[in-house]
Amino acid sequence: MSHTRSSDARTLPMPDLGGSFPGPFATSPHANAIEQQTADWLRTFPLLRSPSEQKILCNITAQGVARLLPTADRDGIFLCADLFLWLTAFDDTHGEAEGARDTTRLVHHISQCVHLLNGYDEPTEEDSAYTDALRDLLGRLQKRATPTQYLRLTTHLRDNLFGILWEAHHLDRPDQVTLSNYCAMRPHTVFVRTVMATAEVALRYELTDDQRASAAVRELEKAVANLAGWINDLASYAKETDRGGPTPLSLPTLLIRHRECDLEGAFRLASRMCEDQASTARLRITELAVNSKGPLADHARAMEGIAASYVWHVGHARYKR
Amino acid sequence: MSHTRSSDARTLPMPDLGGSFPGPFATSPHANAIEQQTADWLRTFPLLRSPSEQKILCNITAQGVARLLPTADRDGIFLCADLFLWLTAFDDTHGEAEGARDTTRLVHHISQCVHLLNGYDEPTEEDSAYTDALRDLLGRLQKRATPTQYLRLTTHLRDNLFGILWEAHHLDRPDQVTLSNYCAMRPHTVFVRTVMATAEVALRYELTDDQRASAAVRELEKAVANLAGWINDLASYAKETDRGGPTPLSLPTLLIRHRECDLEGAFRLASRMCEDQASTARLRITELAVNSKGPLADHARAMEGIAASYVWHVGHARYKR
Repeated sequence: MSHTRSSDARTLPMPDLGGSFPGPFATSPHANAIEQQTADWLRTFPLLRSPSEQKILCNITAQGVARLLPTADRDGIFLCADLFLWLTAFDDTHGEAEGARDTTRLVHHISQCVHLLNGYDEPTEEDSAYTDALRDLLGRLQKRATPTQYLRLTTHLRDNLFGILWEAHHLDRPDQVTLSNYCAMRPHTVFVRTVMATAEVALRYELTDDQRASAAVRELEKAVANLAGWINDLASYAKETDRGGPTPLSLPTLLIRHRECDLEGAFRLASRMCEDQASTARLRITELAVNSKGPLADHARAMEGIAASYVWHVGHARYKR
Repeated sequence: MSHTRSSDARTLPMPDLGGSFPGPFATSPHANAIEQQTADWLRTFPLLRSPSEQKILCNITAQGVARLLPTADRDGIFLCADLFLWLTAFDDTHGEAEGARDTTRLVHHISQCVHLLNGYDEPTEEDSAYTDALRDLLGRLQKRATPTQYLRLTTHLRDNLFGILWEAHHLDRPDQVTLSNYCAMRPHTVFVRTVMATAEVALRYELTDDQRASAAVRELEKAVANLAGWINDLASYAKETDRGGPTPLSLPTLLIRHRECDLEGAFRLASRMCEDQASTARLRITELAVNSKGPLADHARAMEGIAASYVWHVGHARYKR
């Protein structure tokens, strides 16, 4: 299925999120320090070959995490930045086109990560910069998180790795993906649930089991998770179609097929879907921040930072054409 | 790589586990009730088409779980049996040869399960007997387990699903798998860590985080996990090679290549490896059962039941040629 653009992707309708997340967003005073530290971390663990790719990734990660965790301490924010950077670099290097080309190789890389996630951290002859870096991250996370927070985080990391693999298997055949399956997997490929679990560790709060299972928290998290994936899809669409090649595995593509609209109609519909999720998230954030204190209020603020950082990052140069 | 047997697999050396796990093994008084209940459960959730396959799977599962949890109550033991049955049926139906033939299809089936494991249990238009059955299992597990036990269990289930996928990608190319990678993944493809997590729920005890992280518990679990996969490999080798086709992805195959021995030598070596793991497990079980009480002693007994059930099950007709 090859893509023919019926509209210029640069002029397509985009969501108006200013009502729910108006900005300017609070930013950590450590933003520059994060950029420096991620660059240093990449010197210790050379995950990316291209210096320019490295520079742009450190910049977007540092600036994004600075908006995600404006009040976190340096160690917490560094940890979140390095983890997000690892996920993005793993996806860029072993997932996406490379993963689609050789899914068995990707499965092998993931199996090494799953072994580390299971608590086997002895070095092996097959170690790479990716396993070394993951070992470093897991050690730091384990020190800072409670055992249950660590377990939850490593569970979401497994879902990210599976999400990358799911994407690699479907990248060249978006026509085989249903809309509901796409929406189910998208939070894992955009890493947003891992970001939520990391924010909890970085900000040193922990929801009780009842709070986590409550309708308010579940609905808030789901809205932020959907929003994160969908606005990323809209923002990166033009860049992805500029490359030529097959139609991207992306929300607009799925809407065109399943809602029988053209590209502009798909963008209009997707924009409305994003606005709806943003408005649900905002309602729940306000409700939790006003009516609660302690971990629930902390969680509302964390979700606000996460939504803000995803809303902010889609304007970054990484997504410019 | 096609397999040529240099020895008759039926006369190959097998491990002597009588010193560590002598048997006869304690058996639940509910064994027959489990067999009846798993058959009923398969009528509600038709996971398998062939009545004979269904009958043999219910029998081995019921008898195995009766030895695994000789002291558990009926609900706990039924839950463990149904879960193990689900995993085995999923592997037989969607994994193995079928999964290797079409890994994208397998990825799709797994993605539906991952969505349920993430707590989204609304019915979808894509539901199958497998998703319906998993939804039933997760609901029952959630009722009986603590939130952390439930989280741990669903994490191990993700590893099982990934293990099935890893196997599907490598089934026809065991020569691309290293020995250490094989040993790392084998516990997930034999479901033993999930069985451990389920035993904890079925027997209603919970290790503290410190107990779980202790060297004694980790070493015991690792030994039982290795033993479970390796004896299964030895027991099923003859059946798998009788089918003809490619060399099985199995410990003997890996040892032949990586330790430069023939099939008989590989079986001798693997048998010694099994005996070593069994003896480590027995030592740790005795130590924990004698020196501790409460959850640690419960855990030692649970691990004993798990080892016993895997030692027992390799003599079952499912593995006869």
